[in-house]
Amino acid sequence: LPGEDHLVTKVRLEAFSDGVIAIAITLLVLDIKVPDPREPGTLAHRVADHWPQFAAYGVSFATIGIIWINHHAMIRRLASVDHTIMVLNLLVLATIGLLPWSTSLMAAYVRSSSGEHLAAALYAGSFLAMGLAFYGLQRHILRAKRGLLEQPLPDAAIRSILRRGAAGLVPYALAAALAAVSPYATLALCGAIALFYALPSTTADEPG
Amino acid sequence: LPGEDHLVTKVRLEAFSDGVIAIAITLLVLDIKVPDPREPGTLAHRVADHWPQFAAYGVSFATIGIIWINHHAMIRRLASVDHTIMVLNLLVLATIGLLPWSTSLMAAYVRSSSGEHLAAALYAGSFLAMGLAFYGLQRHILRAKRGLLEQPLPDAAIRSILRRGAAGLVPYALAAALAAVSPYATLALCGAIALFYALPSTTADEPG
Amino acid sequence: LPGEDHLVTKVRLEAFSDGVIAIAITLLVLDIKVPDPREPGTLAHRVADHWPQFAAYGVSFATIGIIWINHHAMIRRLASVDHTIMVLNLLVLATIGLLPWSTSLMAAYVRSSSGEHLAAALYAGSFLAMGLAFYGLQRHILRAKRGLLEQPLPDAAIRSILRRGAAGLVPYALAAALAAVSPYATLALCGAIALFYALPSTTADEPG
Amino acid sequence: LPGEDHLVTKVRLEAFSDGVIAIAITLLVLDIKVPDPREPGTLAHRVADHWPQFAAYGVSFATIGIIWINHHAMIRRLASVDHTIMVLNLLVLATIGLLPWSTSLMAAYVRSSSGEHLAAALYAGSFLAMGLAFYGLQRHILRAKRGLLEQPLPDAAIRSILRRGAAGLVPYALAAALAAVSPYATLALCGAIALFYALPSTTADEPG
Repeated sequence: LPGEDHLVTKVRLEAFSDGVIAIAITLLVLDIKVPDPREPGTLAHRVADHWPQFAAYGVSFATIGIIWINHHAMIRRLASVDHTIMVLNLLVLATIGLLPWSTSLMAAYVRSSSGEHLAAALYAGSFLAMGLAFYGLQRHILRAKRGLLEQPLPDAAIRSILRRGAAGLVPYALAAALAAVSPYATLALCGAIALFYALPSTTADEPG
Repeated sequence: LPGEDHLVTKVRLEAFSDGVIAIAITLLVLDIKVPDPREPGTLAHRVADHWPQFAAYGVSFATIGIIWINHHAMIRRLASVDHTIMVLNLLVLATIGLLPWSTSLMAAYVRSSSGEHLAAALYAGSFLAMGLAFYGLQRHILRAKRGLLEQPLPDAAIRSILRRGAAGLVPYALAAALAAVSPYATLALCGAIALFYALPSTTADEPG
Repeated sequence: LPGEDHLVTKVRLEAFSDGVIAIAITLLVLDIKVPDPREPGTLAHRVADHWPQFAAYGVSFATIGIIWINHHAMIRRLASVDHTIMVLNLLVLATIGLLPWSTSLMAAYVRSSSGEHLAAALYAGSFLAMGLAFYGLQRHILRAKRGLLEQPLPDAAIRSILRRGAAGLVPYALAAALAAVSPYATLALCGAIALFYALPSTTADEPG
Repeated sequence: LPGEDHLVTKVRLEAFSDGVIAIAITLLVLDIKVPDPREPGTLAHRVADHWPQFAAYGVSFATIGIIWINHHAMIRRLASVDHTIMVLNLLVLATIGLLPWSTSLMAAYVRSSSGEHLAAALYAGSFLAMGLAFYGLQRHILRAKRGLLEQPLPDAAIRSILRRGAAGLVPYALAAALAAVSPYATLALCGAIALFYALPSTTADEPG
């Protein structure tokens, strides 16, 4: 029963991806430190002092959440998956897996007087890398593996999806470039991108 | 097959939410420190000395567990989900993802002579934030997205579910206010709320 | 469609439990420390010196793995689950969630000259607590909720399952008592119990 | 309905394995440290200085990803699973669960002047142990449990799958032996193996 086999494969690809994305999004909280009660200063000051950790948590959580929505929309179209799709999907997951690190880096350096530009560039750069890997998988599916789609998509629809996907990379490249000016600008732009995609009907793929 | 598509979407929303909630609930244990064998004092004293960590673990585990039961009951009613529901669900998950942090804060400060009131307020406040996000999603589903329900619900049932949901926020607001008096009172009240909902037939939604 | 509703509930209970158990079993590795390259001594000595961490990892991994097999066999019998089953299941998961802590405690203290007996008692005691919670859920399902079983079980089969479940608690009580004599004996007995249940046809429930 | 029971068992085995593998692969990122902003030196130097952590992350992520693809192909063939398969699968998962530790060890020691050979041997050795456990499960399924296969496989196909599986162990043994010469060679060979299996049509089992 090859049809059922393929379904099993797709279901496990989704389950494994959901697992990795869910873990990466939940590990973000480990970056938010609890101030040591024995240190001087009031707790209020010290929690407020941690605002970059909360801001980076919020922006990264929203960004990973939106990539999850897009991932779901991308895989949903497939009737089955093959080896290349699984490997390219692993590449997407590897870039998502790095985000707790780049988020932690951003939170630690945004207010530093040294390294703050590089940290912000790596932060936006890690989102860009995730977007590139996602776009590569999307393109591979819609161009090379159209035979695996559950329903045939007209050329115009494919071009439109890929165009929107490519356009979605531009703001992250801009955010990485802005790091040279101000890490706060990078953080704010990444947050604005996430908010934009959270609004109804603006995800790269129409959700289900 | 739009019907099947919607089912896939709902199944992945549940799987992703289950993943995030399961990880958040299991990360709680990382807060319970193992005393260093090289430090002075008997292990019995030092483990007993960690009681706030165990108490906070128990209260937070029970609270997250109950929100999981309620989440399951809420999503179960839906025949399909749309973009807004996915985004609001991410907001619920983001508040759940913060709980290991607020639990750790509570455990570290409950016996401190400074910051203990704020820590307790943030602890109950994080439960309140989770409850508010949950109520917002519940309200959105039952008011704006009634067409997505698997079976139509009469107005009276919707009003009753939402009234119980809103009523469930009051004890957490009270627990946050009690933090000004005593962090122990906050912890005890949060524990009592969890126990109350663990009793049969008192969850916001009737379970399946 | 109440039948389908119940199926959804059971599927999510399994998915959530699988998630918590999978996370707890994988967090165990965080206890195995990597020696600092700047410290004196050869790596071989220091890795060998970590044998209690490896031993505790192995014993706890096997024990959690077997409780997962038993959990699966227990839930598989149910046609649907209700609120009380979900709450009792959360209690089982809370005891499983504590195991990374008790494993870490055991690994840190087994060779210590102080606290080693208590650590071993808490280690075996945490397995015993997990077993008790599991037995309580098993008993509740087979006694109070026989109507939820997929297929009716004869009284003799129920008595036999519960008898085997209760008998399975005895070795852990013994392992906890042995802690007063030697923490090594506790560790060895817990390992032997796991090995025994890993052999074919000795789990509390017959697997599928 | 024994057929459905078996299906449930297989689905939960897959879900649990997906969970453990997804967590192990995502925990790898915890090894990549964020440099302390208060330490001397530029961030660029210090991030570059962390290249072994990134290299080990990449190699281990790819290796775990490929074992996941192979695991999926192996279990997909089964119509149902029994107790021995579940226990042998736990053994595979226990070896996967150790990989964050051996990856961290490799990253910490690859440039050290002491312990670097042992660390590299343990790194390749942990992949070899995972491969051996996987091969043992594969062999048990295809030899002893042919009756559980969804479709009968001819002897020639079974011999071919097992021969390829055994052949896949050789490079890891070689990588472990190379550790005596150079830990960099071990890391490079492990990376090359992962790349080789990521290419289309070279996994031990044909993917779906």
